[in-house]
Amino acid sequence: MIVQIKKDITSDEQQQIFEVISQAGYSPKLIKTQLAGYIIGTGTGGFDIRRIGSLSGVSDIHRVTDAFKLVSRMWKVKDTAIDLGNGLSIGRDAFTIMAGPCAVEGPSQTLKTAIHLQDNGLRIMRGGVFKPRSSPYSFRGAGMEGLKEMAEICHKHEIKIVTEVMELSQIDQMYDYVDIFQVGARNSQNFNLLDALGKVDKPVLLKRGMSGTIDELLQSAEYIFSGGNEKIILCERGIRTHEHAYRNTLDLNAVPILKEKSHLPVIVDPSHGIGIRRFVEPMALAAVMAGADGIILEVHHSPEKAFSDGQQTLSFEEAKKLYLKANQTYQFLKNL
Amino acid sequence: MIVQIKKDITSDEQQQIFEVISQAGYSPKLIKTQLAGYIIGTGTGGFDIRRIGSLSGVSDIHRVTDAFKLVSRMWKVKDTAIDLGNGLSIGRDAFTIMAGPCAVEGPSQTLKTAIHLQDNGLRIMRGGVFKPRSSPYSFRGAGMEGLKEMAEICHKHEIKIVTEVMELSQIDQMYDYVDIFQVGARNSQNFNLLDALGKVDKPVLLKRGMSGTIDELLQSAEYIFSGGNEKIILCERGIRTHEHAYRNTLDLNAVPILKEKSHLPVIVDPSHGIGIRRFVEPMALAAVMAGADGIILEVHHSPEKAFSDGQQTLSFEEAKKLYLKANQTYQFLKNL
Amino acid sequence: MIVQIKKDITSDEQQQIFEVISQAGYSPKLIKTQLAGYIIGTGTGGFDIRRIGSLSGVSDIHRVTDAFKLVSRMWKVKDTAIDLGNGLSIGRDAFTIMAGPCAVEGPSQTLKTAIHLQDNGLRIMRGGVFKPRSSPYSFRGAGMEGLKEMAEICHKHEIKIVTEVMELSQIDQMYDYVDIFQVGARNSQNFNLLDALGKVDKPVLLKRGMSGTIDELLQSAEYIFSGGNEKIILCERGIRTHEHAYRNTLDLNAVPILKEKSHLPVIVDPSHGIGIRRFVEPMALAAVMAGADGIILEVHHSPEKAFSDGQQTLSFEEAKKLYLKANQTYQFLKNL
Amino acid sequence: MIVQIKKDITSDEQQQIFEVISQAGYSPKLIKTQLAGYIIGTGTGGFDIRRIGSLSGVSDIHRVTDAFKLVSRMWKVKDTAIDLGNGLSIGRDAFTIMAGPCAVEGPSQTLKTAIHLQDNGLRIMRGGVFKPRSSPYSFRGAGMEGLKEMAEICHKHEIKIVTEVMELSQIDQMYDYVDIFQVGARNSQNFNLLDALGKVDKPVLLKRGMSGTIDELLQSAEYIFSGGNEKIILCERGIRTHEHAYRNTLDLNAVPILKEKSHLPVIVDPSHGIGIRRFVEPMALAAVMAGADGIILEVHHSPEKAFSDGQQTLSFEEAKKLYLKANQTYQFLKNL
Repeated sequence: MIVQIKKDITSDEQQQIFEVISQAGYSPKLIKTQLAGYIIGTGTGGFDIRRIGSLSGVSDIHRVTDAFKLVSRMWKVKDTAIDLGNGLSIGRDAFTIMAGPCAVEGPSQTLKTAIHLQDNGLRIMRGGVFKPRSSPYSFRGAGMEGLKEMAEICHKHEIKIVTEVMELSQIDQMYDYVDIFQVGARNSQNFNLLDALGKVDKPVLLKRGMSGTIDELLQSAEYIFSGGNEKIILCERGIRTHEHAYRNTLDLNAVPILKEKSHLPVIVDPSHGIGIRRFVEPMALAAVMAGADGIILEVHHSPEKAFSDGQQTLSFEEAKKLYLKANQTYQFLKNL
Repeated sequence: MIVQIKKDITSDEQQQIFEVISQAGYSPKLIKTQLAGYIIGTGTGGFDIRRIGSLSGVSDIHRVTDAFKLVSRMWKVKDTAIDLGNGLSIGRDAFTIMAGPCAVEGPSQTLKTAIHLQDNGLRIMRGGVFKPRSSPYSFRGAGMEGLKEMAEICHKHEIKIVTEVMELSQIDQMYDYVDIFQVGARNSQNFNLLDALGKVDKPVLLKRGMSGTIDELLQSAEYIFSGGNEKIILCERGIRTHEHAYRNTLDLNAVPILKEKSHLPVIVDPSHGIGIRRFVEPMALAAVMAGADGIILEVHHSPEKAFSDGQQTLSFEEAKKLYLKANQTYQFLKNL
Repeated sequence: MIVQIKKDITSDEQQQIFEVISQAGYSPKLIKTQLAGYIIGTGTGGFDIRRIGSLSGVSDIHRVTDAFKLVSRMWKVKDTAIDLGNGLSIGRDAFTIMAGPCAVEGPSQTLKTAIHLQDNGLRIMRGGVFKPRSSPYSFRGAGMEGLKEMAEICHKHEIKIVTEVMELSQIDQMYDYVDIFQVGARNSQNFNLLDALGKVDKPVLLKRGMSGTIDELLQSAEYIFSGGNEKIILCERGIRTHEHAYRNTLDLNAVPILKEKSHLPVIVDPSHGIGIRRFVEPMALAAVMAGADGIILEVHHSPEKAFSDGQQTLSFEEAKKLYLKANQTYQFLKNL
Repeated sequence: MIVQIKKDITSDEQQQIFEVISQAGYSPKLIKTQLAGYIIGTGTGGFDIRRIGSLSGVSDIHRVTDAFKLVSRMWKVKDTAIDLGNGLSIGRDAFTIMAGPCAVEGPSQTLKTAIHLQDNGLRIMRGGVFKPRSSPYSFRGAGMEGLKEMAEICHKHEIKIVTEVMELSQIDQMYDYVDIFQVGARNSQNFNLLDALGKVDKPVLLKRGMSGTIDELLQSAEYIFSGGNEKIILCERGIRTHEHAYRNTLDLNAVPILKEKSHLPVIVDPSHGIGIRRFVEPMALAAVMAGADGIILEVHHSPEKAFSDGQQTLSFEEAKKLYLKANQTYQFLKNL
């Protein structure tokens, strides 16, 4: 169960709620986020939740039988919008396109990308400075210096930054330069990192693990929310299956299911999903039609020279056409 | 390589082509379909195909390095349209919706469905009379009697029939009553059945196996084509993965890849894919946007009472809305 | 539930059993195999099965809650032994090694293999004459002529034959020449073929499908048993997963689970499983230790020249060592 | 390529090796471990490695074409033994059984387990104090206090400890109390953690990821080795597949393949693999026969009351029998 508590709840009131929950055989846990307060009761018995609803300090109470609680739609029927400031938000009535390079290569690349985004009305740049690489001998990203350079250029052009954090000790260093922390597929169940991101008041884009289930993704999101941060964006990026005709099996089935199970926005990454440049567009448009709140794309001013081998990277020209089509598709779906 | 041969080729001309191909270290094989004649050369060496192009009896020659040949787009750039007669065709510039029950239950159901289809401008009914069931104790379908009843009603209402054939001995019995033979996922590599369907001059809807790869689907299609039947429709219906939040992982990635690799039409089955009634619509629309030439849907006048437990079956009202939306989406994509 | 009925049951007695079962809300089905008679009751209600136990004509009655019935260990606690005649049987207290080529190539190969088997005390040769091939242009086996030649040599050397049947129309032709009909992974849910093999009084080696579950394998076995043939050998041969470092993921977990769920013998195919020659031995020995009743191996007098590319095929010398080790391992486990 | 360098190499000598490697178009990287020094050259060109072999400061040079280098068997043919002190080592000619509870519950449990291990000649206890849990509301382990208590008891009884580290900031705290750091499946590609464990002079037990490939496991091991720590133990613990009849698909195919590709010891975890108590024994014995250097087991003095629901946990009595059988199986295989 989720008990929404009043901002001005007293410790006595809180104590009493805890007692009633405990007496019912449930474990109470207090959650304070940047936006509100909750008491979560976990357990299996059944009892009349109205007994809690009438207690003072309680603003509302909900039975939530999902394993995840705060990210469930069972208590929050309305879509959540993630506010990024400057009139920009993700989810609910917005459709968001994030785009940028696989890896941040240097100021010239960032500047070209920023101008490209601005020219096309996009406001969020993706780009890795800490890169998870299978081999220790591969380039692991431009690091904090790269991020600082990126941030200087992006913020001058009023472009927000979404970039991957790989380790909790990086959070503090990155904080001032990042608008959205990205958690990559390999860290989708790095619970210490998720816990730590729960303490941060910046949005988190959480990717599904390579063999992660939909429910595990939501449980991972619950770590962040129950840690204190409500600003979570879910991201489908493809799962591993027997089929190797493409990079990953982009699982669009996850989109309507996540949208039903959770009130959080859902973004799709067709670039890392199907992973083949000429198929990014149909999968991006299919994702919109499946109900995604946005897409995240890999673009580069010169894909052949991109740090990644560019197999999945769109040129600015290709991307420009896709932005238009994706936005039109979103409008078409709204009016359908 | 594929050598397209002239209709009036003499046996001497044919003999000479075989010799040149053999001398080049390739194995020649003559293929005669209901539409044309081909000589396929399989092998690995490289040689100047123009040596064959200039032989008499040859109308064209193509190098095809795919493992599958006749279903490859490497020799036939233009989309294939499958002609069903009565001005109805599948693929190329058409968008096709097939709909009907999981299993044929009786004349009353068929009649209701036929009228529903007619009212909505649909011209092809799906409905199984031979049902592949995991358990031998389950109902295995209404059989030939059911098919005959179905055919009588459908053809009266000018509705074509697509239904599953499970065994090659059924082909002859079914022939007069069926417009499209469906090969189910479990028979996707039943090569004897595929061979036999190559001898038939009726279209075949070939479903991808549960753990079938995209290339295996095309190889299975090659069996039918090389058996003599060019009228093949490919069908993506979901693969088995670790995720069990839905019935199957409908793999929309397969759509643009199949469309690139092959000239054959590609149909998507969201009902058996995601397998959850309320998610059939978003997956169907996503499939259209991914580039599908059509969709195949499970509908029933009373889904709760359907032979299948109806978990994936749309009511007529739900289906009616989806037909409209799917057609609009197809038009939208055409104009995008 | 499974009602074991007496050999001399009268039709009146049978009728009465049907009535009691039907009254209890179950569907009765009469099964006659080459060995015995059964009435299967399928349904979901609960009732006192002793009411049936006391009816005349009944020899025993068992509650079986598995979806599969006759192949379940819930009614038959003791391991089944499959009698092959000539004092040879599979399962229960026997450990069986079957070996031979991927494909039957000709009399010289068969003779060499037969002598090799005899020299090593093996009594069953594998070898395909009907080969399921992904591509229609590949060699599809030596066919009936190949089988007849194989049978002549094998039976002269008192070697039994296990070979794949791909289509039900082949059963009759093959019957006189085959000792065990093999159903391949691609036909694991070819229910018409399974039904037809239920009508045959020869053992069937049933392979698990590429993405088949353990329960589906048992359901497929139930088709054969309920068709009338109790002589079934289950075979684990690897499943498809994301890992492509080997040919298939040989799933030894299936061995103890199948042995617990079913009374039927379980054979493991490490050659088609891991599919890499030098790893066949460790996987074969691991299979024995996991509890397999036997193994089936690919061997060839000259693996490099084998019809299959021989990547998984053992030489006679390698095989000889493995036979010894596998038998010793089986004895070791018996005494452990 | 891997250049083994002499302990007393001068910086001039090192500089010269770097130059020759660079001139050949390779990237040189210096690796210093607790045991030796190496220069790794990564690149794709081909050149005569003898040019480097003759340089001063070089003790040996090896061409290693695997993506992973230092963990590859291409340069180190002999099995690596991991020295744990007190005459205890893992790999090469040793067979190791580690056992203990899923989670450390308290001193009484630890003491009982320590005595049980001692009584059975086991010298390494497993037991989690930091537990990765899908849900943030689950018990996450006894933490550092639990570890200290565990260490006090274990070290009194001369039992070594293997326990999971989830976050790099835990390494220092845990260092004095841990004998082997375990990296769990969910952190198998947590590259920052792997890097940090490369700086530690204690062995690391590295588990394969849930959808990790064999090569990815070796690449992750390469992170640790190239970070400076040669003491790595690989662990197969099951992968995620479509089959849900058991907890995970314990992939014994990985054992012989890992043993061939790498010189590192390979341990198998049948408890978290198949995950069903009564099947742990057959899978453990199969693992030994597949060539594993050891097994890691979940045991509890009272499995029903274990922190985990105990579904996969052996009782002391069951475990005792398995220890004996596993050791006997190892000896049997050695003599086979």
